[in-house]
Amino acid sequence: MYPKNTWYVACTPDEIATKPLGRQICGEKIVFYRGPEGKVAAVEDFCPHRGAPLSLGFVREGQLVCGYHGLEMGCDGKVISMPGQRVRGFPCIRSYPVEERYGFIWVWTGEADKADPALIHHLEWAVNPEWAYGGGLYHINCDYRLMVDNLMDLTHETYVHASSIGQKEIDEAPVNTKVEGEQVVTSRYMENIMAPPFWRAALRGNGLADDVPVDRWQICRFSPPSHVMIEVGVAHAGKGGYHAEPQHKASSIVVDFITPETETSHWYFWGMARNFKPEDAELTATIREGQGKIFSEDREMLELQQANITRHPERKLLMLNIDAGGVQSRRMIDQLLAQEKPA
Amino acid sequence: MYPKNTWYVACTPDEIATKPLGRQICGEKIVFYRGPEGKVAAVEDFCPHRGAPLSLGFVREGQLVCGYHGLEMGCDGKVISMPGQRVRGFPCIRSYPVEERYGFIWVWTGEADKADPALIHHLEWAVNPEWAYGGGLYHINCDYRLMVDNLMDLTHETYVHASSIGQKEIDEAPVNTKVEGEQVVTSRYMENIMAPPFWRAALRGNGLADDVPVDRWQICRFSPPSHVMIEVGVAHAGKGGYHAEPQHKASSIVVDFITPETETSHWYFWGMARNFKPEDAELTATIREGQGKIFSEDREMLELQQANITRHPERKLLMLNIDAGGVQSRRMIDQLLAQEKPA
Amino acid sequence: MYPKNTWYVACTPDEIATKPLGRQICGEKIVFYRGPEGKVAAVEDFCPHRGAPLSLGFVREGQLVCGYHGLEMGCDGKVISMPGQRVRGFPCIRSYPVEERYGFIWVWTGEADKADPALIHHLEWAVNPEWAYGGGLYHINCDYRLMVDNLMDLTHETYVHASSIGQKEIDEAPVNTKVEGEQVVTSRYMENIMAPPFWRAALRGNGLADDVPVDRWQICRFSPPSHVMIEVGVAHAGKGGYHAEPQHKASSIVVDFITPETETSHWYFWGMARNFKPEDAELTATIREGQGKIFSEDREMLELQQANITRHPERKLLMLNIDAGGVQSRRMIDQLLAQEKPA
Repeated sequence: MYPKNTWYVACTPDEIATKPLGRQICGEKIVFYRGPEGKVAAVEDFCPHRGAPLSLGFVREGQLVCGYHGLEMGCDGKVISMPGQRVRGFPCIRSYPVEERYGFIWVWTGEADKADPALIHHLEWAVNPEWAYGGGLYHINCDYRLMVDNLMDLTHETYVHASSIGQKEIDEAPVNTKVEGEQVVTSRYMENIMAPPFWRAALRGNGLADDVPVDRWQICRFSPPSHVMIEVGVAHAGKGGYHAEPQHKASSIVVDFITPETETSHWYFWGMARNFKPEDAELTATIREGQGKIFSEDREMLELQQANITRHPERKLLMLNIDAGGVQSRRMIDQLLAQEKPA
Repeated sequence: MYPKNTWYVACTPDEIATKPLGRQICGEKIVFYRGPEGKVAAVEDFCPHRGAPLSLGFVREGQLVCGYHGLEMGCDGKVISMPGQRVRGFPCIRSYPVEERYGFIWVWTGEADKADPALIHHLEWAVNPEWAYGGGLYHINCDYRLMVDNLMDLTHETYVHASSIGQKEIDEAPVNTKVEGEQVVTSRYMENIMAPPFWRAALRGNGLADDVPVDRWQICRFSPPSHVMIEVGVAHAGKGGYHAEPQHKASSIVVDFITPETETSHWYFWGMARNFKPEDAELTATIREGQGKIFSEDREMLELQQANITRHPERKLLMLNIDAGGVQSRRMIDQLLAQEKPA
Repeated sequence: MYPKNTWYVACTPDEIATKPLGRQICGEKIVFYRGPEGKVAAVEDFCPHRGAPLSLGFVREGQLVCGYHGLEMGCDGKVISMPGQRVRGFPCIRSYPVEERYGFIWVWTGEADKADPALIHHLEWAVNPEWAYGGGLYHINCDYRLMVDNLMDLTHETYVHASSIGQKEIDEAPVNTKVEGEQVVTSRYMENIMAPPFWRAALRGNGLADDVPVDRWQICRFSPPSHVMIEVGVAHAGKGGYHAEPQHKASSIVVDFITPETETSHWYFWGMARNFKPEDAELTATIREGQGKIFSEDREMLELQQANITRHPERKLLMLNIDAGGVQSRRMIDQLLAQEKPA
């Protein structure tokens, strides 16, 4: 159950740099590649000649060539040519609206005529040179909404990420959830606490003392269909917390694009955007490695949670105050699904 | 098809020494751990908050804590607490009667009010200091009853274990099967034969000549639901065989606890108990290693036998005299199953 | 959908040299071994005693012995003996007509009374000492007919095998397909072209210049149920091409026996027969290694093609002129299938 009339992150440019990429998104097998003039293109991963996957082919002068018998496919899903053949009567395959923006390739798997690129949300950190970004991709075997739940309830950090970003005070701080237009915002502020290891390292990385009390914040913002941006950070206590001047804090945005593959699996694009030392590539790599380890800790939990839910579809899960972020997010997803349902 | 109103071996204490253990038994996903005062406990491996597996959590002061969001579960399946929550109205999960005895953790997956610990059979070798025990655990992809059949018909030793405990004389010696109360007993005695390699080593291990004829015996005892204890040994020929004085023989008890996981897989707890040199830990380790190798030889045969039977459910297998032990054992199992059937 | 009243290659003699071989062919689990007097035999891989796979057993004096409890099976599927048992009333298992010929073991999985060894096609290269043969076996997860299609349309060489035997001129040369009795023949001739790497090496291997223009040919011959022999070669240009004298050319026969395992998997016996330097074992090994690499390039394409077809069973694939070889071959297969259908 995933909305299709919406933009999902499909891949990153490096994944299509040298050859086409086959990837299943929202149940559709799609091949992504750079078409004419380097513009990104996406068509069904199915050659109309004999059903071969086009992703095993190659790109020649901006056209996708089937690696089995050389059929040349246009980025509109119409066959351009084939050695020794007249192709006019050949069946077409589906093509998908696709956009390259903010360092990602976005795909629309629903009705093509509704695919307005302006619907892709603005991402300031992706275009402003004062910000740096590093991230990665995980394949996770669970419903993409379990990942949304996970990210909209950060009390799990205390348990799943106990050695890095978790701390008891997260559990104890009240959480506030509200709907702001097309966003669900869940926020939590902790005052005068000691920072956990990941944030101590971030403070040091920003030239700040790590052995003094801090104020910490987490502001999770869900946008449909399944993007979660989380403002996170710590400031030396009493300097204004979230609103402290840059010289008193270390902060960043956790970036999560969650793209359904099937009903029970998804592609998880995770990363971190920061607005301090943006030119420091080594720091970007260090943060990326640390985040990668932390985020890999969620996988086993989520996949076994999915297995449990699949075994017991009749069981209603609890919806506590800490779950409000996920509950509201799913409500927005349900609205999108309802809009797509045929009358 | 497995009885549920009965005690099965679930695990060994070392498996829950440092963290909870998730294990499926009789189709039920269960988490085993040490609860209050170190007493063993078992509840469903399903957190009532969001369906996370509790086995990924940890034990804090005798209480199981969910590793996702910190829900604290009681060993009775009732939620004790959760950070920032009132838990009174939380749904319960199932708890399972569980006992630690004889070096094993036993679980009852049926109706809890019928779970009488006195129904666990006495195991003299497990409590008498004149005995030593070593063993291991294999996961086998076949119906647990195929393993019962295997152990109640030791003619397979001649073929499956030809290089260790097998010998032609097993095939040739008559076998006797009888039902004694709640046991099925299948016995075979061979006189004046040469011992196979495993038993030659056992004779030497007990300080006895290994190059002289011996009398050999195998007495298999099945007890419901699926425990098989096998008295095995050799004595120098003419010294009384099974009844020979200790200084003339090497003998032991093969211990087999066979615990269903699903309809076509089981947990196989195997081991050997001996009443000579019980203090010799090195000998225990050596025997354990040898037995582990021998018992691993059955796996491929049993798993492919299961695959064949699954392919041909309509075929009736033969029930020869050598199969009488398995046939009688299955009859006892069927009686238990009939008792459990709703009227 | 595979004909059963026909001979398929089941295995090679080395596969049954030391022990029985269990292999599924046309949906049947079969055990192959050398029976009395070393004659090859094939019976169901199912012991009538307890369903154990007979392929885990061994051969004793030409009789197959079950490795579980020693039942001795005859090559006619009738039980010969079992330790301590009267076997007269034991159920039989199915036996399969089987022939050893041309360096292969052939099996007939249909009605036994129709199994005439004379129906196995003559293979001159296998019996004539002027020829040498080397080959191998791949297991491929696709319908065997996709492999027939593959081999009856060699335009794929240009794409799948671009670095070895592929070249643009294959695409450009006209192809001719005709039915000759019980054969489908697809042929292509290319004149005055430069040879691709594999054929340059073959020219050198035969002591011929590799940097001059050549004539190249490919003559694919399909015989039911699924054998494809392909005459391939190059001759120095203008020397008569296919009909050139041996001192001007390098040529061979690509040998393909395609044996269904299930509806969507098959055993692919591939090889190459050549009639130059037949005594040169090192050359045989070199060619075999090169061919093995080339033929392994088809696997991913075919298996993902199968996956695509399975996802879209409603889609009709194109049947172009280049596909005529496969189309005609499938027509012959369909005729065999129609003959087997009960009236």
